[in-house]
Amino acid sequence: MKSFEELTKDFLQNFDTRHFPSRPASLYEPADYFLGLGGKRIRPVMCLMGNELFDQMNPDAWQVSAAIELFHNFTLIHDDIMDKAPLRRNMPTVHEKFGEPAALLSGDVMLVTAYEYINKINSSYLHKIIHIFNKTAREVCEGQQLDMDFEKVEQISFSEYLQMIELKTSVLIGSSLQMGSILGGAGDGNQRHLYEFGKNLGLAFQVQDDYLDAFGDPAKFGKQRGGDIVANKKTFLFIRAMETATEQQRRELKALMKTNSVDKIEKVLRIFRECRVDEWANELKEKFVTAALQHLDDIAVLSVRKEPLQHLAGYFMKRDF
Amino acid sequence: MKSFEELTKDFLQNFDTRHFPSRPASLYEPADYFLGLGGKRIRPVMCLMGNELFDQMNPDAWQVSAAIELFHNFTLIHDDIMDKAPLRRNMPTVHEKFGEPAALLSGDVMLVTAYEYINKINSSYLHKIIHIFNKTAREVCEGQQLDMDFEKVEQISFSEYLQMIELKTSVLIGSSLQMGSILGGAGDGNQRHLYEFGKNLGLAFQVQDDYLDAFGDPAKFGKQRGGDIVANKKTFLFIRAMETATEQQRRELKALMKTNSVDKIEKVLRIFRECRVDEWANELKEKFVTAALQHLDDIAVLSVRKEPLQHLAGYFMKRDF
Repeated sequence: MKSFEELTKDFLQNFDTRHFPSRPASLYEPADYFLGLGGKRIRPVMCLMGNELFDQMNPDAWQVSAAIELFHNFTLIHDDIMDKAPLRRNMPTVHEKFGEPAALLSGDVMLVTAYEYINKINSSYLHKIIHIFNKTAREVCEGQQLDMDFEKVEQISFSEYLQMIELKTSVLIGSSLQMGSILGGAGDGNQRHLYEFGKNLGLAFQVQDDYLDAFGDPAKFGKQRGGDIVANKKTFLFIRAMETATEQQRRELKALMKTNSVDKIEKVLRIFRECRVDEWANELKEKFVTAALQHLDDIAVLSVRKEPLQHLAGYFMKRDF
Repeated sequence: MKSFEELTKDFLQNFDTRHFPSRPASLYEPADYFLGLGGKRIRPVMCLMGNELFDQMNPDAWQVSAAIELFHNFTLIHDDIMDKAPLRRNMPTVHEKFGEPAALLSGDVMLVTAYEYINKINSSYLHKIIHIFNKTAREVCEGQQLDMDFEKVEQISFSEYLQMIELKTSVLIGSSLQMGSILGGAGDGNQRHLYEFGKNLGLAFQVQDDYLDAFGDPAKFGKQRGGDIVANKKTFLFIRAMETATEQQRRELKALMKTNSVDKIEKVLRIFRECRVDEWANELKEKFVTAALQHLDDIAVLSVRKEPLQHLAGYFMKRDF
């Protein structure tokens, strides 16, 4: 059993290969370019960890983890088109560099390639893995659609926002772990607990992301503070503030969203603090991490095998970058 | 064994069901809208015919044929975005009606749904069917990319154009038949011949399409004559004319492509006729149909089972609409 860091290294080594033919270059170069931008590769490593929680590594876990990473990159390429995002990881997005048609099509071919990797695994669990993969893919699309829908609405409830984040980001963390656990021979109950562990960890991660964008130390976080506020992004913090603010504060927040004054960030943060959104976010994150750890506890496997995942959850809980 | 027409009726009945959940409507309504526009459903029916060539209908053929039709519609939705097409089957395209982001995402979810149908079939041939499906999907993407690349190039060779058409349209006809034949229990040799039958028939179909656009009877064809010429589309006819024209004719063709004069169609057609492109296209179509029928002949199955496909090829050969 290896740690998250060790498995990340293993995955990177394994993933560092040609995933596409060379021609037509106009189709495959954009796909190669985007994969070359890197990323934390969290989801495929979750798949490997899910496998190792139950048994030694099944060679098929490399195929499924590659498929998961390709799927995730496919969603990013297409999301960037839909969001008209100019940059990803400080580099031009695919549609910025190669044009929208090539970006759209290279995303499509990346999704097909993900299914090619899945199709290399043993027949005995092919049906089950594809079923989870499809279900998750569909949910991620639904999450992205809800996210776009919510942009056009002035106020959304906490539960609506939570559902969107679950679909858009958390289910893929949960199902990556679950797919790995299937390859490790886990039974249905254990699979379910591991899925819930991942889903809750994903939610904690998103809360922390939103928190750090507003209250983090820019020197550690690596991004300018308040990016979400400038972009009028609906975040856990914003949703909570709108739900708990006084009429006066709510009016002020709405007015601030329509401006881009130099002190916009400071003014919004002041309201956030007045509404105790910062404390609330920390509590919410802890709630999700606690729920995640409870599900991990409930998995029927030797405690020692759970250590890498426990360690990872602790790391998520404390991270300030 | 049923005819093409009978199987089309059966497929339509089977396909007339809800393929998507109702929510979020903003994601699934565009997908439902597009499927509602109809279409000839040729590819899924090829799958059914490929099955019936060898054995009575395998219930899994309904799943695979639905997957094929969803895949085909996914490519059309995305192609329309890339081509900025305002109309499809005389109705607004998905991106025209619902916006580009929703069109992109509902195409994505349609592709995922295609894989869901495939995942319902028996394990014994799941690997093989997914392999062919993925290979074809990848080739169709390559064909669309080449098509877009060729738009930016002044002259392309016949063999380049042929390769593009093969990828973009013919391989899906071939592999639809092949996937059906697998479900009917066909061996490798028979599968290969049936695939080649479909591929050549697809090429013949495209040649005929190009021919009818230029020389067909508008009353029968249902489209205005010369649409491809007005749009400066590279077609079998145009490629051939450019390859066989005199220096003077080639200059004239290039000049005509830069204009939109009222007599553009007549002038281009005159050059086409001078280059005997019309006769050549008929010979080319016959060549493809003959090759297709040769492959059908070579399939080791009782002649009587081949009749529906022979009938279909004859119909393709003679159609003037």
